[in-house]
Amino acid sequence: MDQRDTVNHGDDVNDIESEGLLDGKGIERNWSEISVKNMTNREPLLTKRRNTTSQIAIVGANICPIESLDYEIIENELFKQDWRSRKKIQIYQYIVLKWALALLIGLGTGLVGFFNNISVENIAGFKLLLTTDLMSRHKYYKAFAALAGCNIVLAASAAILCAYIAPAAAGSGIPEVKAYLNGVDAHSILAPSTLFVKIFGSILGVSAGFVVGKEGPMVHTGACIASLLGQGGSRKYHLTWKWLKYFKNDRDRRDLITCGAAAGVAAAFRAPVGGVLFALEEAASWWRSALLWRTFFTTAVVAMVLRAFIQYCWTGNCGLFGQGGLIMYDVSSAKETYSGFDLLAVILLGIIGGIFGSLYNYLVDKVIRTYSIINEKGAPFKILLVVTISLLTSCCSYGLPWLAKCTPCPTNLEVSCPTVGGSGNYKSFQCPSGYYNDLASLFLNTNDDAIRNLFSTSTEKEFHISSLFIFLASVYCLGIITYGIAIPSGLFIPVILAGACYGRLVGRLFESFSKLDTGLFALLGAASFLGGTMRMTVSLCVILLELTNDLLLLPLVMLVLLISKTVADNFNKGVYDQIVKLKGLPYMEAHAEPYMRHLVASDVVSGPLVTFSGIEKVGNILHALRTTAHNGFPVIDEPPFSDAPELCGLVLRSHLLVLLKGKNFSRDRVLSGVEILQRFSAFDFAKAGLGKGVKLEDLDIQEEEMEMYIDLHPITNSSPYTVVETMSLAKAAILFRQIGLRHMCVVPKSQGRPPIVGILTRHDFMPEHVLGLYPHMNPHK
Amino acid sequence: MDQRDTVNHGDDVNDIESEGLLDGKGIERNWSEISVKNMTNREPLLTKRRNTTSQIAIVGANICPIESLDYEIIENELFKQDWRSRKKIQIYQYIVLKWALALLIGLGTGLVGFFNNISVENIAGFKLLLTTDLMSRHKYYKAFAALAGCNIVLAASAAILCAYIAPAAAGSGIPEVKAYLNGVDAHSILAPSTLFVKIFGSILGVSAGFVVGKEGPMVHTGACIASLLGQGGSRKYHLTWKWLKYFKNDRDRRDLITCGAAAGVAAAFRAPVGGVLFALEEAASWWRSALLWRTFFTTAVVAMVLRAFIQYCWTGNCGLFGQGGLIMYDVSSAKETYSGFDLLAVILLGIIGGIFGSLYNYLVDKVIRTYSIINEKGAPFKILLVVTISLLTSCCSYGLPWLAKCTPCPTNLEVSCPTVGGSGNYKSFQCPSGYYNDLASLFLNTNDDAIRNLFSTSTEKEFHISSLFIFLASVYCLGIITYGIAIPSGLFIPVILAGACYGRLVGRLFESFSKLDTGLFALLGAASFLGGTMRMTVSLCVILLELTNDLLLLPLVMLVLLISKTVADNFNKGVYDQIVKLKGLPYMEAHAEPYMRHLVASDVVSGPLVTFSGIEKVGNILHALRTTAHNGFPVIDEPPFSDAPELCGLVLRSHLLVLLKGKNFSRDRVLSGVEILQRFSAFDFAKAGLGKGVKLEDLDIQEEEMEMYIDLHPITNSSPYTVVETMSLAKAAILFRQIGLRHMCVVPKSQGRPPIVGILTRHDFMPEHVLGLYPHMNPHK
Repeated sequence: MDQRDTVNHGDDVNDIESEGLLDGKGIERNWSEISVKNMTNREPLLTKRRNTTSQIAIVGANICPIESLDYEIIENELFKQDWRSRKKIQIYQYIVLKWALALLIGLGTGLVGFFNNISVENIAGFKLLLTTDLMSRHKYYKAFAALAGCNIVLAASAAILCAYIAPAAAGSGIPEVKAYLNGVDAHSILAPSTLFVKIFGSILGVSAGFVVGKEGPMVHTGACIASLLGQGGSRKYHLTWKWLKYFKNDRDRRDLITCGAAAGVAAAFRAPVGGVLFALEEAASWWRSALLWRTFFTTAVVAMVLRAFIQYCWTGNCGLFGQGGLIMYDVSSAKETYSGFDLLAVILLGIIGGIFGSLYNYLVDKVIRTYSIINEKGAPFKILLVVTISLLTSCCSYGLPWLAKCTPCPTNLEVSCPTVGGSGNYKSFQCPSGYYNDLASLFLNTNDDAIRNLFSTSTEKEFHISSLFIFLASVYCLGIITYGIAIPSGLFIPVILAGACYGRLVGRLFESFSKLDTGLFALLGAASFLGGTMRMTVSLCVILLELTNDLLLLPLVMLVLLISKTVADNFNKGVYDQIVKLKGLPYMEAHAEPYMRHLVASDVVSGPLVTFSGIEKVGNILHALRTTAHNGFPVIDEPPFSDAPELCGLVLRSHLLVLLKGKNFSRDRVLSGVEILQRFSAFDFAKAGLGKGVKLEDLDIQEEEMEMYIDLHPITNSSPYTVVETMSLAKAAILFRQIGLRHMCVVPKSQGRPPIVGILTRHDFMPEHVLGLYPHMNPHK
Repeated sequence: MDQRDTVNHGDDVNDIESEGLLDGKGIERNWSEISVKNMTNREPLLTKRRNTTSQIAIVGANICPIESLDYEIIENELFKQDWRSRKKIQIYQYIVLKWALALLIGLGTGLVGFFNNISVENIAGFKLLLTTDLMSRHKYYKAFAALAGCNIVLAASAAILCAYIAPAAAGSGIPEVKAYLNGVDAHSILAPSTLFVKIFGSILGVSAGFVVGKEGPMVHTGACIASLLGQGGSRKYHLTWKWLKYFKNDRDRRDLITCGAAAGVAAAFRAPVGGVLFALEEAASWWRSALLWRTFFTTAVVAMVLRAFIQYCWTGNCGLFGQGGLIMYDVSSAKETYSGFDLLAVILLGIIGGIFGSLYNYLVDKVIRTYSIINEKGAPFKILLVVTISLLTSCCSYGLPWLAKCTPCPTNLEVSCPTVGGSGNYKSFQCPSGYYNDLASLFLNTNDDAIRNLFSTSTEKEFHISSLFIFLASVYCLGIITYGIAIPSGLFIPVILAGACYGRLVGRLFESFSKLDTGLFALLGAASFLGGTMRMTVSLCVILLELTNDLLLLPLVMLVLLISKTVADNFNKGVYDQIVKLKGLPYMEAHAEPYMRHLVASDVVSGPLVTFSGIEKVGNILHALRTTAHNGFPVIDEPPFSDAPELCGLVLRSHLLVLLKGKNFSRDRVLSGVEILQRFSAFDFAKAGLGKGVKLEDLDIQEEEMEMYIDLHPITNSSPYTVVETMSLAKAAILFRQIGLRHMCVVPKSQGRPPIVGILTRHDFMPEHVLGLYPHMNPHK
């Protein structure tokens, strides 16, 4: 960064020679200095390759180009014409469609959520029944072979889907959704193929016995469904709805995807209020009051769909789908009175939970970096990694229970001991009749059932301290090494599992002093780990309360979450923020960095700035579109059309392409006015779905047309948001983020200068970019 | 509005004669046209007086001046110096203080909430026991005299407090808090005297048997406590904390008051999550993720305080405080299965509830307008009105139960029938032993107990259909005529009471078809009325679930709320929005009005625009401060200090006053630089508490000093948010609201013009102002 190439482009506007060189303080800088190399310097931390030509991110394990989303209302002539002519019926149509889409998202996500559960319960149930059956006939090696074989086949299928069809479906998906809702559109993260792989990959992955959850993938699934519906279906697969044209813009799509993310959480946890709060607290970067209502409607629909299906399943038509599906833990039999000592124990639990939670984040980060080296080598290596981890998981879950002693079954039980069938608290494993193996009850179960066992109340002595310790250690480590492999993998369940085990362990250790039930301790332990990794508060609290259906636990859960989050915040960032950063997604934080207060907007403007005249030569436009990757171009009115050069507005690349395709050129440099628009409707300029817009190659401009003119006024956004060049960068960043912009025009402060200094985009606010320009700046001051 | 005085001020900048006259379309308008009359044209709808000199609002029943709040970060030299010199210890100090304040707000609000409950329970309990005792001895006239006498004394005391000490304490308080959080600061709404009257007035008013709630007043109380703590205590009453200097700005105060509002709801309903959601959905206009966490912490503290006190009261030390205090209704014994027919019934319930809810809003609006005529006549009339309504209420609650027949007590009861003591389901009233009067059980109880009776499950036949009908009609009407009198009066309880009665009535009517419990119907009825009046969704839903402690009701409550809100939205606005408008508070909506798309920023700029030079004569500054009420003045750098006139920034009235008080003047027109600041610290310029800042009268400038100069650069905010004059008004409004501005500078588009066209403030975006300037505009297009 010290020896930078300082190049000067954009000759039609800024002809001043670059002259400012960085001094130590890095404050003074000529406004026209432009660095091409620094233009695109945000790279995913995962790769070591140098890439200086495009803005890229790691999505899944592949590198994808990044687009920014544009939430600005483009007020050009076309928009105003359309606004005036819009009939009342169209507004009603829009409102009805909005609610209909919310309903469809709710229905779709609810359906997928139920399908996911019933599939997992049946596949995993079959696998576990087979193993148990072989065990009961003392065919121990065959049992292991059956378990490990099933796991590897399921894992490999998930990995093949993921590696060959949609690499973007790997991982949790919450970081990608979060980045999308912040305005970052990485290619294919919400594509139909990703949706397909996410659904089936998640079912296969969870069934394969990995320590992964279905919650993150459900959020991603919900977002994909919303995106698919909002784009008017997939044109590629001939599933389009033309009347969804109103939603062909980034703002409406953002709202739909927020609803989708909320619906995903609602479907995963059967927690409708928790889903809304999750979308608000963790997923969304922009929020409106009206959205609260729509999101709530979507999650209510999800809750109703799930309820209807579960009622249907009570009739016994759903195979092995039983209590285990759609987790709902009952801790209501526990007493809720607690003393001062209990509070102390809970505070201690929260502090240690916070430390373990942040350690989890740290280790996950290291593991993802390591795996990315393997994953980059190609699909076969990805699959090999998945199979290795699967084998390791099988060894743990089959091998470790041998370490546990057989425990005599307690008397006065309502359930059978040892357990008959797939799930249950008392697995016999190698034990004789009348005895059970407590470690096997945790390991040889689905994750949901293991959590239910850990949360079970009035069963203080069920698990030995040593067993809990072994399970905690192995699940904590397995959870860490499993995230990052090429399958859809949620983080909630591993963390809840480890946390519940940790809580129960603490409960056992304190059992002589404390009156709290060990099941409650397990719940609080889960809360502390979740607070330590995810760093959410209200949404986690409500999700846990909805899971356990007991509002009286609220104060304790709140306390634990607040403590563990506070403790963990001293060490590192939340796990999703960390992954967003690792992937190189240019996420805009809600606050400005401290050092931005010492810079002004023009200090970070990068170029080359390419501007158009109000009436521009077709050739110039084509040249600019071909030679730059810019998405927005300022339009400048010049004499004779105005007294002095003045900023007319901003024109978007996609609109230019549509206009050029219309070929409404004129031989002379004259104002053609709005007539030019009669060939178009506002929806021709609407944002097309993924890869569906007019491309540069689609244009067929003849040589003689290159010398003709076109009037850009009708498609110019005449109200771009602007800042004066002396505006503090910190305040410009806050403006950019709060309004949800893609371009911000920087205008000069004084007279006699070109009417625009430059354009700020998302990348100009990234700490890497700013600190790259001013390397001597103190990032913390 | 048609014959406007068009005056042209600000001679130092814009000397162009006003020339644009409005044509029918109202689009073209000269940028320098200034209308003094239109400057201040937002008046409360309640008064008929014309007031064209100040911006005023009705607060309580008095007229108060309005200030706007300023959430912008003022980046002037002083701020930057302070930022650089700020030590790490100060940042930690700030963070610790922030949390300490949240804790204190939680403790304070929890304490007040408990005090409120225990007082009401004891006062009202004593009154009811006295009446019951006289009734049982058949002294019917004496009983009425006792009841009505107690009520009148309590009501008159509340009214006296309210009328003479703090008129701003009348009413719910939620509209005022909502407006404050939107950026409107009406005098004295958060003053210590208001807090005092709100607490005691609410206790007296609720005890007096009015159909009013304590929920709205609790929200206002929470906000007052937060404001008092944030201002560093009241200097008037010698309760100041100097180390709270960090919070002397509108942004931090806004955050604290948001916490306070949430704490109020949490204390009123024992609903911590509901409180957070209420603050988010209804109260706050700006929200940050960090705030969610802090609000949640505050409400958790409230929940813990209340829990601790209630546990203490279980020992029997709290007099008549029993189950009735701190409402928590138990409907868990009811079955939650429902059929398709039940759903239809629930949908019908929601639709009719929505209609009744919006009718409630309509009637409340009319009643407030009528009462305001009485209230304006002076304090004695206010008190008379309160006493009249109190007498009417007493007549209803004592007279109407005589219409009900005596019902034989059901057998197999766990509670005694007829009820012994203050609260309970079976009041004997005039009935012989073994019988009870169902209407008396509703009327002669506190509102909380009446709601509990209506929500009670497995007691289908307890109330006659005729009794429910009488109670519904009288409570609905009493609720409407009680809001608007000069006592602190919440709207939640009247609406819940009427709604629960309505729901139970519907439940009785459908009882042969529906399997749902009548208690559940009552809950759903309450939800439908609440949805119809308040128009909240998620927060109401969560509050109701926290009240009833049963999450499985969620889908039904959600459904009812969504339906009733949707139905009611077709008729009018939510009741709080309506009151905000009635009071004349200039509330900025989150969306722009449609007609704003046809205007640009310079179309609504009003003046006179008064600007200062970078180095200005003291006399000029004083003149400007004396002759205008402006709060912000643009500072323009002119030759020889710059090549051409250029916008240097914006200086605030309060900062100018502090600077002038420092008397650091110079004889010559030279840049004094930052030395001038050495006499000041950043906190000298911090926003002072209510009425505590430097006033114009405090300045003592000598005649010879008037001709001296002062350098304004160090206190000029060099990064004001700006828009170009051609920016669409709709987009400017969105920017203004989303960033939370007080001033927005409008800069010219072209060269050779003064560097600033005007300043936009909150009032320039008000529909009354815009439509006043362009009366021929269609407000809906």
